[in-house]
Amino acid sequence: MSLKYYMPTRVFMGSECIIDNREIFKTLGKKALIVTGTHSAKNNGSENDVKEALDLVGINYLVYDKVMSNPTISCVYEGASLAKENGVDFIVAIGGGSPMDAGKAIALLAAQEISEDNLFSGIYEDKILPMAFVPTTAGTGSEVTQYSILTNDKVQTKTSIAADIMFPKIAFLDAKYTQGLPVITTINTVIDALSHAVEGMLSVRATAASDALAKESMEKIISCVPDIKQALQAYISGKSTKVPILSMEKREALLYASFIAGMVIAQTGTTVVHAMGYSLTYFKDIDHGRANGLLLGDYIKLVHKKNPELAEKVLTAMNFTEVNQFIAMMDGLLGKKEKISAKEILEYSQKAINTKNIANCVVKPIEEEIREIFQASLD
Amino acid sequence: MSLKYYMPTRVFMGSECIIDNREIFKTLGKKALIVTGTHSAKNNGSENDVKEALDLVGINYLVYDKVMSNPTISCVYEGASLAKENGVDFIVAIGGGSPMDAGKAIALLAAQEISEDNLFSGIYEDKILPMAFVPTTAGTGSEVTQYSILTNDKVQTKTSIAADIMFPKIAFLDAKYTQGLPVITTINTVIDALSHAVEGMLSVRATAASDALAKESMEKIISCVPDIKQALQAYISGKSTKVPILSMEKREALLYASFIAGMVIAQTGTTVVHAMGYSLTYFKDIDHGRANGLLLGDYIKLVHKKNPELAEKVLTAMNFTEVNQFIAMMDGLLGKKEKISAKEILEYSQKAINTKNIANCVVKPIEEEIREIFQASLD
Repeated sequence: MSLKYYMPTRVFMGSECIIDNREIFKTLGKKALIVTGTHSAKNNGSENDVKEALDLVGINYLVYDKVMSNPTISCVYEGASLAKENGVDFIVAIGGGSPMDAGKAIALLAAQEISEDNLFSGIYEDKILPMAFVPTTAGTGSEVTQYSILTNDKVQTKTSIAADIMFPKIAFLDAKYTQGLPVITTINTVIDALSHAVEGMLSVRATAASDALAKESMEKIISCVPDIKQALQAYISGKSTKVPILSMEKREALLYASFIAGMVIAQTGTTVVHAMGYSLTYFKDIDHGRANGLLLGDYIKLVHKKNPELAEKVLTAMNFTEVNQFIAMMDGLLGKKEKISAKEILEYSQKAINTKNIANCVVKPIEEEIREIFQASLD
Repeated sequence: MSLKYYMPTRVFMGSECIIDNREIFKTLGKKALIVTGTHSAKNNGSENDVKEALDLVGINYLVYDKVMSNPTISCVYEGASLAKENGVDFIVAIGGGSPMDAGKAIALLAAQEISEDNLFSGIYEDKILPMAFVPTTAGTGSEVTQYSILTNDKVQTKTSIAADIMFPKIAFLDAKYTQGLPVITTINTVIDALSHAVEGMLSVRATAASDALAKESMEKIISCVPDIKQALQAYISGKSTKVPILSMEKREALLYASFIAGMVIAQTGTTVVHAMGYSLTYFKDIDHGRANGLLLGDYIKLVHKKNPELAEKVLTAMNFTEVNQFIAMMDGLLGKKEKISAKEILEYSQKAINTKNIANCVVKPIEEEIREIFQASLD
């Protein structure tokens, strides 16, 4: 048995965990940059809670709320400049994956000079501003990973900065911030978390420990699927645009599952599914979680063909006996699928085959198989 | 759902993991104090491997090999003096729980002045020498916890220093060091790990995450019990004093289970079972793991009476349907039990009821119940 394990983030989960644990901000620094998107952190109460906690412990802060979905390189350099100009010594990122991923890159760039050409080099000094993260969706798990995924226009995809110094020091998980999420966002993000757990088990770096965590995450997600499907039906029938029928208990289960799945990919990384999904997001603006979800079933089919034991391990962990049961569940969540052209398939497959994610797969697809997965997964 | 999670140690597990990952020692410092016991680290090859790794990366070291079983306060002050006199800037502890627990206290005392009166105060500066740990038994999990348990003669028991700064930076898990362990040591240590997993689930601080880890640890341990019992039979019949029939695969499973159970108690702490066991160790020199094992079954019986759902959760996690199956398994591992007098029961129960461990139990026993457990558990 060979194994590596590392996940040093301190996690506080629970109702009012930010206010209740506010003293811990003092261990991070004296002046914070709050990194977030334009609206959601204001609407769901998370930004106010962070500000109130910082006020109560006498810490100054300023807000950078310009992080867009799939944050760009210029965005993180802008945030880092603001941090440096204002003598900020720690970062609080609030939001879904985008503000958290941006927050990590800002923390890195505020602490050391890195040119754009070297941003994805993986070679950094051992310096970064400490970070506290507040996820407001239950999907990315970025609050407990060392990855920052940025939109990289030079190579027309999303590219990952990965460095152990980028683990946040603190993560605050309060499910109340996810309670008002629209049903489609809820579904896209839960699929992201599920794909982390599944891909973690399909990674060459999977270990007994990461598998146990993946299983735990899957069990929690699967237990919420009936409620999510009910919410989706209500939405489709025009009864609701949100998910009010998802109880706080289920919201907490999903936020927990997303955190645990984050711990998984912190150990294992992701697979070809993420590499393929990045093109769907970059070129076709398909949400990141949904992009993975569209592809996941057909990749598991390939795994089942080439390594049935591995596929069965994953399916069993989700309480399925065959791939089609998994695909049926996903189809129910995904609804009508996007179209993809032959030209797009060629282009995206060429990109995916050249990523490091291929080497990270136990079942390494060849380019033709990647094309077949794109073909089968979309319309 | 409310939850705290923290375990920042970086774990390397696998054959030759010390030599293979030797570069990481350079991140800890320039001069090491190797803390270990008198014999075992020399005999099982671990001390040599550490020295070779340090030599290869050009790090100086000296050895403090005077840690006894159940290390004393004077031992850790002696080790800390040696560290300070020699300008050591990091600690490598090798061994079972005793050298590792001593290593943590030495790392603390070498970095800050703490009087003996304040050693267990829990109030320390944020300074400690960084540590790399090499467990050579599969029981304590100390390599991934923030606890240092020392023999405290003033209060005639074992007392715990607990501080988050005491998590080792690195843990190296190579099961080859456990291969030659005598059968009785193997059993006592595996019982220690099992009691960590079980007590973790019975703690008021148990969370979904710690329960998932506890279950993982239990499953691995239970899967090794038939092999361990076979080794015990061979020992009893005089065929062997060691456990040669325990395969490397099983040794690795046990070392892994002990690490995972360490992650559990890092979150949950232990229960009344440990508090009671400390008296059996302090006054009657019963091995720590065995002491817990003797008491565990009767404590689960009490839990079953007062909170059947909780007891069943623990039993189900071990694939048992009733308490007596667990007790039968433990009896098979424990063999003939030690005697205990009425006077001893009175004295030890008074000690146990006054520990913080009581408040940490979901099912908090009263003193009379503690006496009953002692009575039922020993001869």
